[in-house]
Amino acid sequence: MRIRTGITGEEKGRGKEKTMLLYDYFRSSASFRVRIGLNLKGIVPERSPVHLLNDGGDQFSDSFIGVNPQQLVPVLEDGDLVIIQSMAILEYLEETHPEPPFLPYSAAARARVRSLAQVIACDLHPLNNLRVLKYLKDELSRSEEERNDWYRHWVSKGLAAFEALVTGHKDTGSFCHGDVPGLADITLVPQIFNAKRFNCPLDDYQAVMAIFENCMTVPAFIEAKPDNQPDAG
Amino acid sequence: MRIRTGITGEEKGRGKEKTMLLYDYFRSSASFRVRIGLNLKGIVPERSPVHLLNDGGDQFSDSFIGVNPQQLVPVLEDGDLVIIQSMAILEYLEETHPEPPFLPYSAAARARVRSLAQVIACDLHPLNNLRVLKYLKDELSRSEEERNDWYRHWVSKGLAAFEALVTGHKDTGSFCHGDVPGLADITLVPQIFNAKRFNCPLDDYQAVMAIFENCMTVPAFIEAKPDNQPDAG
Repeated sequence: MRIRTGITGEEKGRGKEKTMLLYDYFRSSASFRVRIGLNLKGIVPERSPVHLLNDGGDQFSDSFIGVNPQQLVPVLEDGDLVIIQSMAILEYLEETHPEPPFLPYSAAARARVRSLAQVIACDLHPLNNLRVLKYLKDELSRSEEERNDWYRHWVSKGLAAFEALVTGHKDTGSFCHGDVPGLADITLVPQIFNAKRFNCPLDDYQAVMAIFENCMTVPAFIEAKPDNQPDAG
Repeated sequence: MRIRTGITGEEKGRGKEKTMLLYDYFRSSASFRVRIGLNLKGIVPERSPVHLLNDGGDQFSDSFIGVNPQQLVPVLEDGDLVIIQSMAILEYLEETHPEPPFLPYSAAARARVRSLAQVIACDLHPLNNLRVLKYLKDELSRSEEERNDWYRHWVSKGLAAFEALVTGHKDTGSFCHGDVPGLADITLVPQIFNAKRFNCPLDDYQAVMAIFENCMTVPAFIEAKPDNQPDAG
């Protein structure tokens, strides 16, 4: 991990702006969301990997707590501004770099896309976070099998709801909403990567998986994959 | 619980618009957020209480699953539009009823407010949801003491971060951001109600509790309290 020193780099196509700095971890799915978002907007940030498992976790170091008292990644710095929470970062990118948009135009459509994203960001992902699995292991002495069951339970709950919400909906297209990738896709894809890593059954989610496959043809998603990150180990 | 029949009521100060319909539960803190938001915007919706503990839970009924396949409250209907997820509902209210605003003007300030809200909505609250406590009890056979420890652990993690983020920050005022209540306050207050219900120690969060007390002088917050709801039992 490297804390910002004031040295700035280059930003693709945005030479006059200050370079952003992204603190992330290759396997963190909230970080993965932000990487996709930055790629879609054509922003190349400086990078500061925060290894969540290194020596008990870089996120607990004094220097990182000074960046984010919540001790979680991702964090995006834009000049003097420090933004925590992946969904807040994505909304910020949308407001400051409107093209191409993550969110559709109408309030009703925006509500649909945000709802889909939040099914994952507010109800599925938080339960399967590293710190939660660690609590189940260390504080509640739950076995690996019980932790995996926990993980798969919340994945199935969340993806079943997501599947019901996109299946047959008039606004579902190649992507969650229409035929361009947006905030719901950005949130869905990292969750599917996690689900695969934990061997969650995905056969019941045909609409979800069709969207996932379409996303994984888009360079912004491919380049944001965990194993394409500089800190992937 | 009552599923919409097509009969519309009145909306305070908005006689020409269709009345919204809110599905909620008095004790649900995500519902509480939306009630505060509606009150701040001066919107009086029709109400359809969904009793989460009644006969195993009204949210699991076929009729409600037709409204929200995620089987959670709140849900807001606005005409033909059905919106799930409390934070998506609040963003929708902000976009369709801009005054008074929940979010400040600048993208940087909006990012700060959304981050604060998400510390609770994306990392604290999801872990202490009814369905999660039920899983700890039924599937993992954890005792009441272990469940309470779990609850208090995540409250302390979340509120400690929140406290660090608001303490001494130049933009913190009587409320989380400046001197008018907004999205961060809307998300914080229901979480404090929950924390009190579970006897979580709150003495370490002086900045948070000062904001909470200020919020609880505002009618929009007072009227949204669980015990002021028609379904409070």
